[in-house]
Amino acid sequence: MEFTSWLVDQCSPDEIHMFKRSGKILAQQTQFQELQYVETETYGGVLVLDGAVQSAETDEYVYHEALVHPAMIAHPHPKSVLILGGGEGATLREVLKYPTVERAVMVDLDGELVEFCKLHLISWHQGAFDDPRVELRHEDGRAYLENTHEQFDVIIFDITDGIPEGPAIGLYTREFHKLCCDRLTKEGVMAVQACRLTLSYWEEHAVIRETLGTAFPVVRSYITFIPSFLVTWGFLLATKGVDPLQLSADTISKRIMERGLTDKLRMYDEIAHSVMFCMPKELRANLAKPSLILEDGKPLVFA
Amino acid sequence: MEFTSWLVDQCSPDEIHMFKRSGKILAQQTQFQELQYVETETYGGVLVLDGAVQSAETDEYVYHEALVHPAMIAHPHPKSVLILGGGEGATLREVLKYPTVERAVMVDLDGELVEFCKLHLISWHQGAFDDPRVELRHEDGRAYLENTHEQFDVIIFDITDGIPEGPAIGLYTREFHKLCCDRLTKEGVMAVQACRLTLSYWEEHAVIRETLGTAFPVVRSYITFIPSFLVTWGFLLATKGVDPLQLSADTISKRIMERGLTDKLRMYDEIAHSVMFCMPKELRANLAKPSLILEDGKPLVFA
Amino acid sequence: MEFTSWLVDQCSPDEIHMFKRSGKILAQQTQFQELQYVETETYGGVLVLDGAVQSAETDEYVYHEALVHPAMIAHPHPKSVLILGGGEGATLREVLKYPTVERAVMVDLDGELVEFCKLHLISWHQGAFDDPRVELRHEDGRAYLENTHEQFDVIIFDITDGIPEGPAIGLYTREFHKLCCDRLTKEGVMAVQACRLTLSYWEEHAVIRETLGTAFPVVRSYITFIPSFLVTWGFLLATKGVDPLQLSADTISKRIMERGLTDKLRMYDEIAHSVMFCMPKELRANLAKPSLILEDGKPLVFA
Amino acid sequence: MEFTSWLVDQCSPDEIHMFKRSGKILAQQTQFQELQYVETETYGGVLVLDGAVQSAETDEYVYHEALVHPAMIAHPHPKSVLILGGGEGATLREVLKYPTVERAVMVDLDGELVEFCKLHLISWHQGAFDDPRVELRHEDGRAYLENTHEQFDVIIFDITDGIPEGPAIGLYTREFHKLCCDRLTKEGVMAVQACRLTLSYWEEHAVIRETLGTAFPVVRSYITFIPSFLVTWGFLLATKGVDPLQLSADTISKRIMERGLTDKLRMYDEIAHSVMFCMPKELRANLAKPSLILEDGKPLVFA
Repeated sequence: MEFTSWLVDQCSPDEIHMFKRSGKILAQQTQFQELQYVETETYGGVLVLDGAVQSAETDEYVYHEALVHPAMIAHPHPKSVLILGGGEGATLREVLKYPTVERAVMVDLDGELVEFCKLHLISWHQGAFDDPRVELRHEDGRAYLENTHEQFDVIIFDITDGIPEGPAIGLYTREFHKLCCDRLTKEGVMAVQACRLTLSYWEEHAVIRETLGTAFPVVRSYITFIPSFLVTWGFLLATKGVDPLQLSADTISKRIMERGLTDKLRMYDEIAHSVMFCMPKELRANLAKPSLILEDGKPLVFA
Repeated sequence: MEFTSWLVDQCSPDEIHMFKRSGKILAQQTQFQELQYVETETYGGVLVLDGAVQSAETDEYVYHEALVHPAMIAHPHPKSVLILGGGEGATLREVLKYPTVERAVMVDLDGELVEFCKLHLISWHQGAFDDPRVELRHEDGRAYLENTHEQFDVIIFDITDGIPEGPAIGLYTREFHKLCCDRLTKEGVMAVQACRLTLSYWEEHAVIRETLGTAFPVVRSYITFIPSFLVTWGFLLATKGVDPLQLSADTISKRIMERGLTDKLRMYDEIAHSVMFCMPKELRANLAKPSLILEDGKPLVFA
Repeated sequence: MEFTSWLVDQCSPDEIHMFKRSGKILAQQTQFQELQYVETETYGGVLVLDGAVQSAETDEYVYHEALVHPAMIAHPHPKSVLILGGGEGATLREVLKYPTVERAVMVDLDGELVEFCKLHLISWHQGAFDDPRVELRHEDGRAYLENTHEQFDVIIFDITDGIPEGPAIGLYTREFHKLCCDRLTKEGVMAVQACRLTLSYWEEHAVIRETLGTAFPVVRSYITFIPSFLVTWGFLLATKGVDPLQLSADTISKRIMERGLTDKLRMYDEIAHSVMFCMPKELRANLAKPSLILEDGKPLVFA
Repeated sequence: MEFTSWLVDQCSPDEIHMFKRSGKILAQQTQFQELQYVETETYGGVLVLDGAVQSAETDEYVYHEALVHPAMIAHPHPKSVLILGGGEGATLREVLKYPTVERAVMVDLDGELVEFCKLHLISWHQGAFDDPRVELRHEDGRAYLENTHEQFDVIIFDITDGIPEGPAIGLYTREFHKLCCDRLTKEGVMAVQACRLTLSYWEEHAVIRETLGTAFPVVRSYITFIPSFLVTWGFLLATKGVDPLQLSADTISKRIMERGLTDKLRMYDEIAHSVMFCMPKELRANLAKPSLILEDGKPLVFA
């Protein structure tokens, strides 16, 4: 018997988005969070974590290209990459497109989530977990970095927002950012997914940005529209010196070609790079203001 | 991290009901249907099959008492009971309250559904599946009845509505109803859940009623409001002669007492019995009109 | 250009109902409340006051017949009727069906609402406002009764629920109910619409019932399912001695005939009367418990 | 009594957006369309035409600055401006910020809409209708242009999308675009709001773009994210020769300063200009493909 149902995403107390389902729903509780996979008419399969849309089949490439490539391209020769989170395997997929990459460590606390994604989100990971360059670990990302002395060329935060609270809170403090900085090689670059970012909703992004700024000399915000999120999303690049704003279109274009990525990227190119790092006027002004800084053991409460 | 989400029930193209979630969601596909169990603020845990609310923790007793007791009380001494469907185990629970019952056969096609309910719908079945009087079978209900010569005192249809189409369509034809009549003992009673039934939505009920009438001399409609369905629900009693309308309040009251049910029933009593069999004026008129009859191999299409 | 939109009724923080629109929406603010008239697929035109569905074209007759006829039939010869509220004109329409009625006073505070209904809710009032027996007043219902010494055979409360707060709060106190009792003739009957009434939602009804009980010797609850409300609705009859439970089916049936109503009633008859006054078992138990009483100047807060 | 309600925007059969109301709703039917004004928590007052969100108090400036300023700044000295549509008065407000403007003709078919906006959308028009430079007309925009020989420096289309059908269909054909071109001065610029424009939803924009291209030598798409639309929106600039892509940041910045706009613009500046004219990679590819062309009397049906 046919029936109609809807995926509901209440992104705030005042706004509800409903997506018509086109097929199956799967749901389970892991030790850490609630997983749902729902097939929708408009966005294909959608991964929902703790009730919030996480990524959608039709446009996850926008999110994952935006998260991965500005950092990877900003590095002259990325060989080793650390991914914190990234359960779907799509961040890993983008990283592995680089022939320069010899080692990709992915640390996602929630092994049940990763198993679920391996099984059901095939168009996301596209087999990335089987690449011999990959080391997949299920443990706390902070503990991992504390217990290693390895340095990485690129570190990528692909973690559900834990601001102001949540299991990932320990990954958003100045102390941890300093540790990340130590675990980066000299020309290293760190990319962080950093919350919804719009003209009226920028405080969470600003806190992460300000906190990163206590550990890194260069921190840059960038932004892109993700259709299935119905909103523009913020990201941050943090480096020990390289400035992504100084990368010329020619350099970007040349690196894309040299690394054999031209036909492998659907959204990212030298034009996207330059557009993403431009914020609207009032948002620039808001991000220029001082913000709060997250510290270990210091709870943060937004008004 | 806290989040808000909603269970959505689109009961028709023109009406959507949303229930705020209070806790976990579980979802899986069985061979036959899609299962969801969702905890809601207003109705507690809710079982959803193929997108339609099936029963809710706070008021499943209304549905299950209405389905089971008019038939069981109308029978002078019910010893053997057959349940078709009934995956949650709550129909079984109500049947087993009768000390007269020696044998209860439950035939539900979907073994995965029953496993799911055993595990997660404990307040529904309350351990009924472990009662030694129970025989639980996973096969087609029609095939089961065709292959047995056993007769039952009471047969209960607790099947998701398959009108006009659906996997249960074979259980709603005159041919199958005749078979059911044959498999009932002389004073036997059959109870059938029979769709939403309101002043403006009665056609499906009427078809089942008319079809039953080709096989049974006595067929009576009854109705009750189920809060979590947001609607009044229809049921049918079919017998070889006993008329539930002729049961006096005294008889009902006496049987409830004799069978030790007084404190075990939350909704059903002699008052509920007499109210449930009264339809509103216009609904009586609509149900008095001739309706279509379902036959094997004859597809039914509602305008 | 075609478009789809929905009427949304959030009847509690935890439940939202959406009705697909089929046609126009009209909305305005009066001095007292917000009016909306919205055409829907399932229920035809719907009147919405302060965001809550008030009555719907396809089933307003259920509500209005339930509100008016038990009281009118319980009175041996109703000549004068007072309606408090009743903006749509449908309560008036039902009252005027009685040839015994010589005078019908309707007091609705909100003249703008009544004008709106006269213009747009024609199928509700069906011209009732033009009947020469009608006196229409726009003033506070309590002030009106305080300033008159006239007595009525029937008083009907058709007021949006003001429990626990709201502009109509002064019409729900024991002091006002005593005044109403004084303004009733010896065989007088008062009917009060009295909130949603279900197995799990009965406290508001209980308060009104208990408060009425301080002023009237006989108070009876009754209940009926209103499809567009998606819930069973409660009403109360209060009299100086007549008991609606003692009215025989024959008496009701005879009065309906004598007053020429047989073909003019779609829902109410002697069967509906007897069914409506029967509550489910647990609801009877809940309503038998003592409840709070509303008094002038004493605020009521539900937990 | 407090209540919660929601504004519902069903932007497609498969997607529904709900915005919590914070205050009043006003609704009326004009001769041409249905108007609603609804106050929401997230976006302030929202104007809804025929069920579709049209503009919202908190971010209408993004839409209106994007619509008006690229065209106005691309013109070396805009003295006369024609606005087609623009009922809210906010397009007019932006145009009147230019001290060079001596004459602004606004032609909106729906006089009732404009009256409604004058009364209720004060923060949109901010008194613009009272400016002595304004000529306000209520007639068909095409008829107006056919009956005048006046030429304008800038023409702005601020019309609800009438693609593929709708009352404004006559304003989207090659014939009308040729007429517009004739009615522009030599350095004239035309700006057109041109539908939702995303990676997966670009066909409507492409048709308008292709059609404009039959009448104008230079046609450029641009895009910006409008928070309350939950989507990126497309616009088009069409000129007789000036190319907005060739305007240097210095020129834009200088014109903004010379025209005294620095503190009067919240979103538009030389950075926004350059970002808006950059499309994502796949969208560029899609817009580069040939598309359909709209002609008078030739109906357009999207698959």
